[in-house]
Amino acid sequence: MDTNSDIDVLISEVGPRDGLQSIQTVMPTEAKKAWIRAEAEAGLREIEVGSFVPPKLLPQLADTAEIVEFARSLPGLTVAALVPNFKGAENAVRAGAHKITLPLSVSETHSQANLRKTHAQVLDEVRRIVDLLRDLPPERRPAFEGGLSTAFGCTLEGPVPEGKVVALARQLIELGCDEVGLSDTTGYANPAQVRRLIRLVWAEVGKERLTGIHLHNTRGLGLANALAALEEGITTLDSSLGGIGGCPFAPGASGNIVTEDLVFMLDAMGLRTGIDLEKLLAVREIVRNALPDEPLYGFTPDAGLPKGYRRGGWGIAA
Amino acid sequence: MDTNSDIDVLISEVGPRDGLQSIQTVMPTEAKKAWIRAEAEAGLREIEVGSFVPPKLLPQLADTAEIVEFARSLPGLTVAALVPNFKGAENAVRAGAHKITLPLSVSETHSQANLRKTHAQVLDEVRRIVDLLRDLPPERRPAFEGGLSTAFGCTLEGPVPEGKVVALARQLIELGCDEVGLSDTTGYANPAQVRRLIRLVWAEVGKERLTGIHLHNTRGLGLANALAALEEGITTLDSSLGGIGGCPFAPGASGNIVTEDLVFMLDAMGLRTGIDLEKLLAVREIVRNALPDEPLYGFTPDAGLPKGYRRGGWGIAA
Repeated sequence: MDTNSDIDVLISEVGPRDGLQSIQTVMPTEAKKAWIRAEAEAGLREIEVGSFVPPKLLPQLADTAEIVEFARSLPGLTVAALVPNFKGAENAVRAGAHKITLPLSVSETHSQANLRKTHAQVLDEVRRIVDLLRDLPPERRPAFEGGLSTAFGCTLEGPVPEGKVVALARQLIELGCDEVGLSDTTGYANPAQVRRLIRLVWAEVGKERLTGIHLHNTRGLGLANALAALEEGITTLDSSLGGIGGCPFAPGASGNIVTEDLVFMLDAMGLRTGIDLEKLLAVREIVRNALPDEPLYGFTPDAGLPKGYRRGGWGIAA
Repeated sequence: MDTNSDIDVLISEVGPRDGLQSIQTVMPTEAKKAWIRAEAEAGLREIEVGSFVPPKLLPQLADTAEIVEFARSLPGLTVAALVPNFKGAENAVRAGAHKITLPLSVSETHSQANLRKTHAQVLDEVRRIVDLLRDLPPERRPAFEGGLSTAFGCTLEGPVPEGKVVALARQLIELGCDEVGLSDTTGYANPAQVRRLIRLVWAEVGKERLTGIHLHNTRGLGLANALAALEEGITTLDSSLGGIGGCPFAPGASGNIVTEDLVFMLDAMGLRTGIDLEKLLAVREIVRNALPDEPLYGFTPDAGLPKGYRRGGWGIAA
């Protein structure tokens, strides 16, 4: 994030991608557009709007190209998309995404289960994408992030060696990614691990190459992990409106950290996000109407704002 | 907490008091004993087992004297109790509590609503309790904490001036309390505020006079606040098994931070609590059977431990 920015923390909303890909219901394209527009109007500056995967694998995201084109029309919004491979990157470039993220699972078992690719095969896709982007004119060239998923542990392999995360981060940067990201895909991370892994990756590739983290709240530690990352110096946090994408079979064990709770925490701390919390809370209505059968999570939405709450910090009265 | 201790963080379980006083169901005395015994066996070193309030006000806690006497029989357990006034302190001393806490609400509106007393009247009770304790032989003298409730904001008054928290902390210590505690009664606290208020109180009364904090998870920030407090140097954290005491009318908006999630966070971070997490998780069964109609919260219990999880730290493999 630009250090001359008027915000302290960039929140990257991933609900339209990570949230929607995890639920069976297909949200109508017009509802997605209304959601994304409303969040941009609430002050969100970056939204991951979809994933360029084959529609037969994820029919929920089949309209990603159309959504990217729409989102590009919203002023000041960085339009991000996930790409599983070179083909997806081509489509993302064609649609005009500002930022693309290719996930590389540190757990090779998970990589094979998720993308059906070994590390070597994923890194080969990275190489081809870098070549593709190199030939593009700057105004059409998206930023390219390598997302290190299962970086904090894997539901298949268990613990993931930190040295492996660091080595893959270096390979991604050496191949030509602009940045790497750390993803707690499985909700295994804890604050000490978050701090340690950020420092290890920074020591290997430099601070400017790792600015963002993707956290889940599966074990309730999501905001504590976000706090640890922020205090370490991370400036971009992924989150999902209503925490959608949580597993419906484990009540309360939500998926992504909830955007509304994250914004409340940051705003109450006096950190600038550029987001109007009350407008953000109102966006839930759009998602609720479009997905009436999906639970929406969030403690702050359930409990309401503190009495006398005003934007920009809480509890600093002398 | 003793700095030569074999633990890094003392978790003070408050479910039998704060949890049970917030729900209508009266838990049978034998179930309370089974709960407290099982938690002590899981490694809990301090449990707030009840409150010495008039039984007609809180029939749920009418058996507190019997519970204190029982809990004293458990080896190595510090038996804590809440006392609303001098009369309660007399009863607590008679029953043999090791530690008593008198709540003083920083919001005077809340103090009048909760205890029907002004600050001056509460401080007068403190004075009388100090006199009572002074005359006791050391082996019968409980530690006396003044608990600053609504320290982070009040549902009636809104923001609470930090200068007021600090001033009341000083008065409590000057009157003869051994310690003060900070309570986020309303779930309004944020990590920046937690850090700031701890520092302000320490600057006024000294670090050894404030070692504990009582947090709620009403807006989902409970563990982030706990992390901030710990990193500041707080060593005692209150929490409640299953987060019981949450408002049943706001799903997910639980009350106290959940002991199970807190222990998971600390243990995963490699901090020693002395608690066996798997034994702790098993205690839920006792509470569930005794309170079949009350929801039990907790992300870690719902999601389960990470694959390959072992006690004493997660993710440190090289």
